[in-house]
Amino acid sequence: MAEWLDSVKSVKGILLDVCGVLYDCGGDGIVIPGSVEAVTRIKKAGLKLRFCTNESQATREKFITKLNLVGYDISAEEIFAPGPAVCQILKERGLRPHLLVHDGLLPEFEQIDQSNPNCVVIGDAADNFSYENLNNAFRHLIEMEKPVLISLGKGRYYKERDGLNLDVGVYMKALEYACDIQGEVVGKPAKAFFMAALADMGVEPHEALMIGDDIVNDVGGAQQCGMKALQVRTGKYRPCDECHPEVKADGYVNNLAEAVTLILEHLNN
Amino acid sequence: MAEWLDSVKSVKGILLDVCGVLYDCGGDGIVIPGSVEAVTRIKKAGLKLRFCTNESQATREKFITKLNLVGYDISAEEIFAPGPAVCQILKERGLRPHLLVHDGLLPEFEQIDQSNPNCVVIGDAADNFSYENLNNAFRHLIEMEKPVLISLGKGRYYKERDGLNLDVGVYMKALEYACDIQGEVVGKPAKAFFMAALADMGVEPHEALMIGDDIVNDVGGAQQCGMKALQVRTGKYRPCDECHPEVKADGYVNNLAEAVTLILEHLNN
Repeated sequence: MAEWLDSVKSVKGILLDVCGVLYDCGGDGIVIPGSVEAVTRIKKAGLKLRFCTNESQATREKFITKLNLVGYDISAEEIFAPGPAVCQILKERGLRPHLLVHDGLLPEFEQIDQSNPNCVVIGDAADNFSYENLNNAFRHLIEMEKPVLISLGKGRYYKERDGLNLDVGVYMKALEYACDIQGEVVGKPAKAFFMAALADMGVEPHEALMIGDDIVNDVGGAQQCGMKALQVRTGKYRPCDECHPEVKADGYVNNLAEAVTLILEHLNN
Repeated sequence: MAEWLDSVKSVKGILLDVCGVLYDCGGDGIVIPGSVEAVTRIKKAGLKLRFCTNESQATREKFITKLNLVGYDISAEEIFAPGPAVCQILKERGLRPHLLVHDGLLPEFEQIDQSNPNCVVIGDAADNFSYENLNNAFRHLIEMEKPVLISLGKGRYYKERDGLNLDVGVYMKALEYACDIQGEVVGKPAKAFFMAALADMGVEPHEALMIGDDIVNDVGGAQQCGMKALQVRTGKYRPCDECHPEVKADGYVNNLAEAVTLILEHLNN
């Protein structure tokens, strides 16, 4: 028996990535077969459940509407997304952002003072990552005495129906090199992001299991917090992930449905 | 007396950066006062002279036309630019590029087979660095068994009249991170690029002096080849360059005219 199945006995809470686990991103999204029922089965078994996403193309409200449309019954309180998390950080630290984000995320920042920026926040801006917009963000940073760059995630790419697309991490690295600085990540794989979701469930890291399709940001990030983590072979999964030089998942499963079947079979047995 | 002035006695050849040393880039360019005469004085003194530029927004021919327009008498044979250099490399290695470059550089590649690409070449593409174009380059790379990324220089930014602009190195770092690869640089600070210019002059590294405004790519690159190198306080120079953690110029001069005056005073004295 795989070691992670042995540890399932003490699992009290589950963290799920969304894109690539619940549905395939892009356009309206396509549900991954068995995932809707898998989410229901987790809840019925009495396990705590939160969704940890790096989605930053839309507000949390719009994102939930999309999830509901494809068949999921999920509420705002269950979702941890970098948009709301960064707004809290900006308020706490008195930071006024210059934003380079997707138009769909802008309403999240309506209550945030954006005058005379003293930091730059970038998200998965997609087509908004024009040369002009990236250059503007660069000019803001290079003029700051102590440049503060906050990136909503640090993913390399994600999969949409028409192929792989560059993610925000690529542009974080670009600005880091341009200004010779280190950016801060809000979202996965940042420890604070996972820990906030765990705290909300009232579950310790060793009692939690993360399931995602990103070997570095989902699996590696969760493991660094002391959680066990599974990689699903859906979404952006590629076979070479199973030979990743730095991160080894506690288990690999074909999809969320298979993971949940295995978990429920071994829970409290 | 500064140590570099002592070594000037044995100097036989000079390499000059162009943008920020001969003229300020952007639009038609503005000559830096005294630089036209300084170039003439170098030639009259019997010193060998070549121009080493990372300019990749135009073909070498167009670039020379621009230099002539602002008052310089420079021919194609005197200029080392990454466009012609990369074309030679592509031919030698049987590489067929997917190009992400400035429209102005495209004619340089007219004789190059670009069908079924087996490498990606990026230059200072400026507004052509859209999300869509960078994503296309990424998709080509990620599908190659052994991705080959060639970057025409690795500068962070350069100065135009309206402010600082992101340079090609920033996008090289972006694609390197996206694909988990190392790009190859053609142009400064690559050793092969400096050595080709030296060989063309028939001058050994210890007999040559590089003068540029970029502490890393001009000064650091030349020093790694065994040349002495000066930084001018024009172009993209910033005072903090004189405290750079890794590179220390052999000398700092206010501009090219001052450098040439000092060189000619100490030559063979």
